[in-house]
Amino acid sequence: MMVKHVFSFLEGDGKNKKLLGGKGANLCEMTQIGLNVPPGFVISTEACVQYLEAPNGELPEGLLDAVKVHMADIERATGKKFGDPDNPLLVSVRSGSAMSMPGMMDTVLNLGLNSQTLHGLIRQTSNERFAYDAYRRFIQIFGKVAMGIPDQYFDETLDAIKVRAGAISDVDLTIEDLKEIVELFHNVVEEQKFRPFPEDVWEQLNIAIKAVFNSWSGKRAVDYRKQFNITLDQANGTAVSIVAMVFGNMGNDSGTGVGFTRDPATGENKMFGEYLVNAQGEDVVAGIRTPRPIQAMAQEMPDLYHQLEELRDRLEKHYREVQDFEFTIEKGILYCLQTRNGKMNATAMVRTSVEMVNEGLLTKPEGLLRINPEHLEQLLYPGLDPNFKAEPLSQGLPASPGAASGKCIFDADSAERIGRAGQKVILVREETKPEDIHGFFASQGILTSRGGKTSHAAVVARGMGKPCVAGAEGIHVDTEHRLAIVGDRVLHEGDIITIDGGTGNVYLGEIPTIEPEFSSYLHTLLDWADESAKLGVMANADTPEAAEKARNYGAVGIGLCRTERMFNAVDRLPLVIDMILADTVEQRKEALNRLLPIQRSDFSGILKAMAPYPVTVRLLDPPIHEFLPSEGELEVQIEDLRRLHDTARLTEKNVESLKLIDPMLHSNYMAQRQGLPAFFASLDLTLIDAALAKKELMLQRARILKEVNPMLGHRGVRLAVSFPEIYEMQIRAILEAAADCIKEGIEVHPEIMVPQVCSVLELEYVQKIIDQVKKEVEESHGVEVNFKFGSMVEVVRACITADELAGASEFFSFGTNDLTQATFSFSREDAENKFLPYYQQQNILPENPFESLDVKGVGNLMKLAVKGGRSVRPDLKIGICGEHGGHPASIRFCHHAGLDYVSCSGPRVPIARLAAAHATMLEKSYDK
Amino acid sequence: MMVKHVFSFLEGDGKNKKLLGGKGANLCEMTQIGLNVPPGFVISTEACVQYLEAPNGELPEGLLDAVKVHMADIERATGKKFGDPDNPLLVSVRSGSAMSMPGMMDTVLNLGLNSQTLHGLIRQTSNERFAYDAYRRFIQIFGKVAMGIPDQYFDETLDAIKVRAGAISDVDLTIEDLKEIVELFHNVVEEQKFRPFPEDVWEQLNIAIKAVFNSWSGKRAVDYRKQFNITLDQANGTAVSIVAMVFGNMGNDSGTGVGFTRDPATGENKMFGEYLVNAQGEDVVAGIRTPRPIQAMAQEMPDLYHQLEELRDRLEKHYREVQDFEFTIEKGILYCLQTRNGKMNATAMVRTSVEMVNEGLLTKPEGLLRINPEHLEQLLYPGLDPNFKAEPLSQGLPASPGAASGKCIFDADSAERIGRAGQKVILVREETKPEDIHGFFASQGILTSRGGKTSHAAVVARGMGKPCVAGAEGIHVDTEHRLAIVGDRVLHEGDIITIDGGTGNVYLGEIPTIEPEFSSYLHTLLDWADESAKLGVMANADTPEAAEKARNYGAVGIGLCRTERMFNAVDRLPLVIDMILADTVEQRKEALNRLLPIQRSDFSGILKAMAPYPVTVRLLDPPIHEFLPSEGELEVQIEDLRRLHDTARLTEKNVESLKLIDPMLHSNYMAQRQGLPAFFASLDLTLIDAALAKKELMLQRARILKEVNPMLGHRGVRLAVSFPEIYEMQIRAILEAAADCIKEGIEVHPEIMVPQVCSVLELEYVQKIIDQVKKEVEESHGVEVNFKFGSMVEVVRACITADELAGASEFFSFGTNDLTQATFSFSREDAENKFLPYYQQQNILPENPFESLDVKGVGNLMKLAVKGGRSVRPDLKIGICGEHGGHPASIRFCHHAGLDYVSCSGPRVPIARLAAAHATMLEKSYDK
Repeated sequence: MMVKHVFSFLEGDGKNKKLLGGKGANLCEMTQIGLNVPPGFVISTEACVQYLEAPNGELPEGLLDAVKVHMADIERATGKKFGDPDNPLLVSVRSGSAMSMPGMMDTVLNLGLNSQTLHGLIRQTSNERFAYDAYRRFIQIFGKVAMGIPDQYFDETLDAIKVRAGAISDVDLTIEDLKEIVELFHNVVEEQKFRPFPEDVWEQLNIAIKAVFNSWSGKRAVDYRKQFNITLDQANGTAVSIVAMVFGNMGNDSGTGVGFTRDPATGENKMFGEYLVNAQGEDVVAGIRTPRPIQAMAQEMPDLYHQLEELRDRLEKHYREVQDFEFTIEKGILYCLQTRNGKMNATAMVRTSVEMVNEGLLTKPEGLLRINPEHLEQLLYPGLDPNFKAEPLSQGLPASPGAASGKCIFDADSAERIGRAGQKVILVREETKPEDIHGFFASQGILTSRGGKTSHAAVVARGMGKPCVAGAEGIHVDTEHRLAIVGDRVLHEGDIITIDGGTGNVYLGEIPTIEPEFSSYLHTLLDWADESAKLGVMANADTPEAAEKARNYGAVGIGLCRTERMFNAVDRLPLVIDMILADTVEQRKEALNRLLPIQRSDFSGILKAMAPYPVTVRLLDPPIHEFLPSEGELEVQIEDLRRLHDTARLTEKNVESLKLIDPMLHSNYMAQRQGLPAFFASLDLTLIDAALAKKELMLQRARILKEVNPMLGHRGVRLAVSFPEIYEMQIRAILEAAADCIKEGIEVHPEIMVPQVCSVLELEYVQKIIDQVKKEVEESHGVEVNFKFGSMVEVVRACITADELAGASEFFSFGTNDLTQATFSFSREDAENKFLPYYQQQNILPENPFESLDVKGVGNLMKLAVKGGRSVRPDLKIGICGEHGGHPASIRFCHHAGLDYVSCSGPRVPIARLAAAHATMLEKSYDK
Repeated sequence: MMVKHVFSFLEGDGKNKKLLGGKGANLCEMTQIGLNVPPGFVISTEACVQYLEAPNGELPEGLLDAVKVHMADIERATGKKFGDPDNPLLVSVRSGSAMSMPGMMDTVLNLGLNSQTLHGLIRQTSNERFAYDAYRRFIQIFGKVAMGIPDQYFDETLDAIKVRAGAISDVDLTIEDLKEIVELFHNVVEEQKFRPFPEDVWEQLNIAIKAVFNSWSGKRAVDYRKQFNITLDQANGTAVSIVAMVFGNMGNDSGTGVGFTRDPATGENKMFGEYLVNAQGEDVVAGIRTPRPIQAMAQEMPDLYHQLEELRDRLEKHYREVQDFEFTIEKGILYCLQTRNGKMNATAMVRTSVEMVNEGLLTKPEGLLRINPEHLEQLLYPGLDPNFKAEPLSQGLPASPGAASGKCIFDADSAERIGRAGQKVILVREETKPEDIHGFFASQGILTSRGGKTSHAAVVARGMGKPCVAGAEGIHVDTEHRLAIVGDRVLHEGDIITIDGGTGNVYLGEIPTIEPEFSSYLHTLLDWADESAKLGVMANADTPEAAEKARNYGAVGIGLCRTERMFNAVDRLPLVIDMILADTVEQRKEALNRLLPIQRSDFSGILKAMAPYPVTVRLLDPPIHEFLPSEGELEVQIEDLRRLHDTARLTEKNVESLKLIDPMLHSNYMAQRQGLPAFFASLDLTLIDAALAKKELMLQRARILKEVNPMLGHRGVRLAVSFPEIYEMQIRAILEAAADCIKEGIEVHPEIMVPQVCSVLELEYVQKIIDQVKKEVEESHGVEVNFKFGSMVEVVRACITADELAGASEFFSFGTNDLTQATFSFSREDAENKFLPYYQQQNILPENPFESLDVKGVGNLMKLAVKGGRSVRPDLKIGICGEHGGHPASIRFCHHAGLDYVSCSGPRVPIARLAAAHATMLEKSYDK
């Protein structure tokens, strides 16, 4: 039995891409749902494989006979005849395999043209120039694809004529030029192939089919399949689609255009597109004529417009998705040449989802699933007005999304001062440090010239939801002279700049920004998402303001409140430093007692902003040396102070430099100076000596506290084991804040979380402190304070011994950043700066595990922890609070691992809500 | 029914320590195996509990009656009578619970003495002084224990008499003094208790029994049980043993002594001990008379000596262990008062094991099990001659065992020079760095004034098997002035010192050392061990010499050969630095090509030394910045060179300082200077400029390569992913060395091991390099090179994805040091310096997991890896090469986890061999 190799568009199975290729199947589907597709047929991929395997290089037996039968069908359908000099049928011959391989294989248009049929085309289109242009293009493409003549021979000929004719582009060529080119192209073929260009249209077709088949095993295609790991199982051979050419340039009852079934910019349910009367697609591309909006067709060609609206309805009903389609009208007949899903911006995606669900076209899950959660990011940060064109001054890394404008300011203190005065500020630094944190609060955005996406600036800015461009290496920041140099341009402090954290661009001047819109459509969509999602979405937030924002994004609690962020604020850091410098427990407690009311008021504000949702407070995590300036900085400060001391007297200039060396000392000095001008010198020395002594103590302490691997150092609960009084103060601040709220009648749910836990005995150690403090607070405040106690799970051993940990934890929260570092033995900063790029390049780790959770390694550890924890405490609440908590693929994993919630930075909450819904809906198709 | 509370030594169950206490059960056992124990009986712990719980404070009903019955038995056996003024029976009343609680409860001797029986004792012993001394002691101890009179009242009285008599110690007191003391002690009792000292011996006994019972709930005992976690389940109540006193001072047919059944110093099968005729044990303690060696008894008291030999045989046959026993001879009758297992040094333990097995007294497993593997350490390192007494000059940490003497030298270069000249050297540094490695090779031992047991000096010295004392903080090293200051003593370079790495002591001058003896007994023992052990024992060794040594210790291969140790050698470091400074791949390859022959010859030497056992070579592991001096050092060197440049000329003094700044530059200079005195100045500047340029480049590179967390940084296979040419060179050196050996007819088994693997794709990446190099080497050498390819398993993700890794590995080797760091998120250096002491103190981690493998966390990960790996490759060879590989408890875990081998530093190989045998033999009792 002979296998069927050729399928008309009416009979081919539109779902069988393996047999018919993507393009062939698509044409069949379009035809069979009643769209008026130009008639044609597909030769199967099986025929291709058979041909390529045949030892004699012949097409499969009977294939050409079948092709002839189908060509006759096309002739009948179009009323044209293949090779007819009067009314010639022209066809396109297109490749197409099961997997899209754009540009890798060949396509021939206008096949069937020869010196005879050319004149039929001229007559039919009344457009001699068009016909000759099509002819010369056909000769070149056929010569190259089917006969193997390199492009360069044709291009050189064409260029010679263009030079002679003074033509800048192809459209400047006259009909006479084109005729001569046709002539010369024929010569090229004869010279290169020692035979004339085939006049026989059947020979043309035969050669073209073979050429398309052969292109499957061409170097380009083979390399492409290798690079993208396309296996024979996914695609084997290319199909060939042969389609009647239709022409939109056959008079005023003809035309061509493109359309979207809905507005891709706004999502409005209204056809969108443009068209040209009596024109071919090439005219639009060449820009010779300006197309008109599609709505104009209602007047110009009302009947065809009606057909177009029918087409649009049919497309949406069938594809259940906004379609981007191409059409040609040949002599009053509308042909649909191609359709595919329309690409839209996030605004349009959200609106069309909501409306298509409301119209009954989609179910809610379909409406949710068609939106990639990451796509929502566009809607959640201010962006630059796309209508405003500007050249970027420089570019860095897009480190935290959003756009912002403001005066560039080169240090955090000034940023704070100017920001407080109500001006917009962009903090510009070589790199930022924890002690710059007050500058972040006061700025619209942050720009650094050094550091990557995980630099201090990037991480903190993302946490605060502020735009940040990091590592803009083209910018040389000169803090001393209060300027920055960008190429040969100088930026003075106070100049206005704009940064776009979504692209990394930096602009001079103020560029208008568009505020994010949290439209009613988005609200509806996310409400639907919440209905499906099993995972709750909480936010990481460290201040009452951030908590407020997170609520607006739909967070149902705070999954991570980092207390060290509070320690870094400018009014607290000196107290923290006193705590670090303490020689005795008493001194340390004294400093902590001064911190207590500040922390208490922080917690109180956050609890109130989130009430009645839970607020998970993580006790102090980083090693305490992070709160000291670096050794190098201290050495410089000490040298400066010594020099100042040696001058023995503060001149006005010295006073200014004192401000740079030690702002605290400066403000003390300014306070003392009030009304005491006569005693300058004597006062100064005392002050300076005191400052010097303190700095020297700080340096000494910094040297003692220095660690080889701070990531694995003296931090988290390890601090509590050596200095229990720190956690004691923090626990007291939390419980007192909660007690105060309860007395005000506010329902609060604090949760106390211990970081860096590796053994249940650490939890029991902290629990003892808590029990004592709880008793004292309840007695002094006269109310009962309920809270949960739990463990960060970010140390590998915590995962392995989760059953034990669960005995002392009411909840687990995975810290997947640290857990990933420990699982891979990768220090994130070092890895991203030094070797991860090589790993990605070599495909050893195609995805950065700090961005996308490593399911195989880290994920399996998490599953062990979930299993271990729940084996002891079945109702154990489990969540994730690392950056992965806002990453859709990771959220999907968390869903399957049985977590209860994810927590992410505020602006990613909507993304996470949608991703959580996706995870539920895609449950069955999860295969990891 | 009345419960039986009192058991004679003839009827008590010698195994029932819970009921009879350790001491009581022991006395019963001794009696029942036919030893002549003084007659006596035990009151059970149950009686104690019943007494302590009784509300009325009365002894259990019938107890005293039973005691009287048993006292009558004693009277019959001894022919003495309790309370008889002529021939009085005296008894000891001793406490003893199921768990040993030394010194926590009370014992009363010579009970039964009163003003009447005293005279009987005098008559019997003909020793009035002895009797009065015993009486005054009895009054004091009874007064304190049974009547609750504080010691101080008695002591003050005694002291007053001593002062008056001009007596320095108790033995200086005359009989008259003692009589007065007895008088006065009676007064003390009356004054304190308003009653006379009890004359009635039954009252004495009654009170004493209650007092011993009560001591169980005394504060001392309760605290002790709390501290050592002794539960009621383990021990509840104390028993009371009542034993007839026997006296060795009843004439020349009496005596006392102690003995060992074999020589505890040598293990020789010969009774060892000493005795005194007509004396009590106290006489030995007081040092009044010098005891004689036990063999002298053969002449002096041949019959008794014969009895003693019988006793010895009986003891060994019964206890099947060398016994340490006490005896007393009263009027020609030998009594055995006590016996316990003898404490011996390692030499004796080994010899007695071998001989007792050969005698048929023990089975081989018993002979092996009685030796603690750690105990062998004594035999494997030189130690200080214990006969030589000296005061240590200072003390540090015992960082690497062994003792050594030599001239103290303050830098590695000088150490190398002087060491090569054949002199013994101790390298003395504040702390050591990788660039000091050549100094280690040349030295007998290393002494540092900073750093802990895991400092560079400690780790490297342990690896080399050289003694090291680290962190001797009392020593202030002043390299510049070539001296060290210890308190007010100055140590000049060249002074001889001795260090003892087993104790941490540092001595001035040379102390004789004893070389380790690898006796034929030890060989026999370890051969037996190898017969039982399932785990193979390999060694970690990085040089041919170390490989040779390891073989002698019985290693059956090298489990870890660290190639970076070779990189640090002084002739190679400059090449390594060139490699680091390379700007292009070509430059890097050029430097590597110069390293290739050196590495090849290293590998060749090691392979030959170990042939035909396997040699596992780990490819480069540390981050390459470790091969550069620190930034600080480079900054100083650069400043020095600049200054030198400014002087524009090298004076002789400058030449000397040049040597300190840059030894390479110095030696270049010295070479050039040969015969060219006239051109000094011009030559120097060129040289200095070149050196300066290089140092500046090094500084720049050091800054670029600096890492935040080097432990988790750009190291191991990550280096190969970015710079494949490094591994390529090392692989080529290994395979060429192997090929050369094969051509010489030597059977070699190289194994190539990749460090820091986290993904199978890394292994496949290296495998590709290997395939290529193997092909080239086999072609150029004309022989086939067989080897194994495998993975270090030291990254958590490697454990989790072990099934995948096993697809590309023929063996796994656990690196448990790094694995422990990653599992706990503890940086070892930071942890041991900063917080682990707190963890140990708080009992959160009672054992340092870097010393004893953490079975619960790290161990479970290892088990996962073993299971995963073997699921894919059932014959996967699995070992461990971290420091834990030489730690007995960890070896036992490895046995149970199904490992094939352990690898440890050479001198620990014998320990590991014994521990591996123990693991097999103790298989059933493993409970983790």
